[in-house]
Amino acid sequence: MPSDRPTAFVVSQGEELLTGLVLDTNARHLCEQLTDLGFRVTGAATAGDRVESIARTLRSAAGASVVVCTGGLGPTADDLTAEGAALAFDRPIELHPEALAQVEARYAVLGRTMAPSNRRQAMLPASAEVLENRMGTAPGFALELDDGRRLFFLPGVPFEMRAMWSDRVAPRLSGRTPRRHLFRVLGRGESQLQDLLGEVPVRFPGIQLGFRAAMPENQVKLTAEPEVSPDRFEAAVSAVRALLGRDCFSEREELSLAARVGEILVERGERLALAESCTGGQVAHLCVTEPGSSRWLDRGFVTYSNAAKVDGVGVREATLDAFGAVSEETAAEMARGARAAAGADWGLSTTGVAGPGGGTPEKPVGTVCFAVDGPAGTHTRTLRMPARDRSAVRRFSSFVALDMLRRQIERLAPRE
Amino acid sequence: MPSDRPTAFVVSQGEELLTGLVLDTNARHLCEQLTDLGFRVTGAATAGDRVESIARTLRSAAGASVVVCTGGLGPTADDLTAEGAALAFDRPIELHPEALAQVEARYAVLGRTMAPSNRRQAMLPASAEVLENRMGTAPGFALELDDGRRLFFLPGVPFEMRAMWSDRVAPRLSGRTPRRHLFRVLGRGESQLQDLLGEVPVRFPGIQLGFRAAMPENQVKLTAEPEVSPDRFEAAVSAVRALLGRDCFSEREELSLAARVGEILVERGERLALAESCTGGQVAHLCVTEPGSSRWLDRGFVTYSNAAKVDGVGVREATLDAFGAVSEETAAEMARGARAAAGADWGLSTTGVAGPGGGTPEKPVGTVCFAVDGPAGTHTRTLRMPARDRSAVRRFSSFVALDMLRRQIERLAPRE
Repeated sequence: MPSDRPTAFVVSQGEELLTGLVLDTNARHLCEQLTDLGFRVTGAATAGDRVESIARTLRSAAGASVVVCTGGLGPTADDLTAEGAALAFDRPIELHPEALAQVEARYAVLGRTMAPSNRRQAMLPASAEVLENRMGTAPGFALELDDGRRLFFLPGVPFEMRAMWSDRVAPRLSGRTPRRHLFRVLGRGESQLQDLLGEVPVRFPGIQLGFRAAMPENQVKLTAEPEVSPDRFEAAVSAVRALLGRDCFSEREELSLAARVGEILVERGERLALAESCTGGQVAHLCVTEPGSSRWLDRGFVTYSNAAKVDGVGVREATLDAFGAVSEETAAEMARGARAAAGADWGLSTTGVAGPGGGTPEKPVGTVCFAVDGPAGTHTRTLRMPARDRSAVRRFSSFVALDMLRRQIERLAPRE
Repeated sequence: MPSDRPTAFVVSQGEELLTGLVLDTNARHLCEQLTDLGFRVTGAATAGDRVESIARTLRSAAGASVVVCTGGLGPTADDLTAEGAALAFDRPIELHPEALAQVEARYAVLGRTMAPSNRRQAMLPASAEVLENRMGTAPGFALELDDGRRLFFLPGVPFEMRAMWSDRVAPRLSGRTPRRHLFRVLGRGESQLQDLLGEVPVRFPGIQLGFRAAMPENQVKLTAEPEVSPDRFEAAVSAVRALLGRDCFSEREELSLAARVGEILVERGERLALAESCTGGQVAHLCVTEPGSSRWLDRGFVTYSNAAKVDGVGVREATLDAFGAVSEETAAEMARGARAAAGADWGLSTTGVAGPGGGTPEKPVGTVCFAVDGPAGTHTRTLRMPARDRSAVRRFSSFVALDMLRRQIERLAPRE
């Protein structure tokens, strides 16, 4: 356990966090970033709109070598972070001309005149260093205490905070930046991944393995301590890649499953048509979320009623009668019918019982049938998902469907 | 300012929160619930997987009359909340037979044998009261300190936590529950709502007005202090209802826009067909998210290519040539074509430029055309949305489309 890592603490400020009006995504982002930079985050805390509460919370971070605080830097009376910091560390608060110039410049860019109340944003604790905010009016600031501890105060608006963090704070803290590599995985749960990959940190000392569940996707992150050589890190990455095989659909944060499907289809100059019953448009939605999806998604059918299955995508009445709407036979005809209607290269279908009603002993809630129809024929599959709730079944099914398509296409076109 | 409100503090436990692997939605839920019950939440904090860190964080909540803590109750070695609580409040930790019986019963229900390590989950601080977990194996517990402060320890799995909160904790804390009423609104921004409703708390003293943005929806919450009479509260609710008019689509937390559309359609025995271009299945997805949607959603077409618009829902080539795919004319033919193909009572369509590419000077990114076709004819509309990002344009458009349909149906069937 690398307990010699430097420590950090994250403070969020804002009454709207404590009343539950706003979900605090800033703290999570900072915790993740600090961890990636090699810090051990020892705690996080939220303070409301009272100077004493802010001061107490900042003091509770004592012991951490770095404190990052977000929120409360704006021009209104409830923006009290600078005063809280001044109280916590016993410094006078004073006008910082450099901060004032930044606020004024920012208003000039926006073509607006600065209201006198905005001078507040330039009132900072004595000896604070001003941090420029290139996305908004409120400057941030940094304080260094006599014992060497460093505190950074960033705005609460997420995109302003993220920009200031990347521009002004992370570069100063990144002396020990570990290298990292991400694998995005479908088809294996976290405990299976743990079993599969558990040996990797043993074989490669100084390399850590992290997991993150993003239902139904799982992410595997490799992180190297500074003493690990680049070759050694590459060897660990290759080892994990080989162990994961086809279950890894992407090694890039921004390459989603749908984007990966689109990438392969565009490479091959092929197009897709969808026929969705229980997923009800969610597969189409995942595809269309990707920019440029019109190059590879031709159309989708949401064939919710049996009539829509028959006259929309050409499922035969006889098939519905003999096997039911939730069957691999119906799924196969849906995929073929969608593909034919669109003149597309691939057809993908889902039909199942998402619940809460509609389950039978043979086909309980959570039973979903899938089909992929393509150049190499029709491939079908049935899954029974734990029927926790309707939207989980549908979300899970949508990813399974796209992943089944990906595996079928990759089988035709090996990655190498 | 009602500063005589009882105070509460929220503690989250889990190393995965401090490394940023998991976003803490539990704290937000509890902050919101406690605020709704009339508490002032004075702070929130997160502790990692170390007994001392948990104990220190629990002690930092000192002063709050109620502390609610989530996480760290499971069977593994890093589940240390009970030990942290024992250390914080100087109590021995001991086996609680009642908790053990609950864990064993839970495993029996699941048809599994309890591993010896699961006995850990029944080791709680002395004199703790066991709280039953009906969704999982880890029991929660409550502690009452000598000075009357109460602490509740709930599991970290969100649906287990929420169930235990509602079943076991909230009922005990609700002695002073303020009355509240929710309005869910589309078509007015927060500042417009502020202008429209700002007088209400002035006319009705003791009644507070809260806003919550859930893009593109806005929520208005009325809360009454205990001294406000029920009649007076009802009068305020009626005043807000009258001011909001048709812009309010629901007065119930669980009644979403799609559920409201479904409710009216089922009442009228009518069915809907969709033709989506730029929203790419997201409207269908919103509809199908509602249980029972097969009663009112017949089918959907995701007509992403021009060919799909022509042979899928019968848009004329001449219309596409003369007006383009993004036009009210095309939208109208899409809605009519979807309605006719399904033999449905209503057709709803979207076609637009979601971006990032595809914009022109006349039809910039963010331009979206909508049509509703129904018993009273075809209604069309064009909106230009601030083109912040593709997924925002699509999400916004999906809600606008459904809301346009709702208003058209409500026009035929007044609420009274």
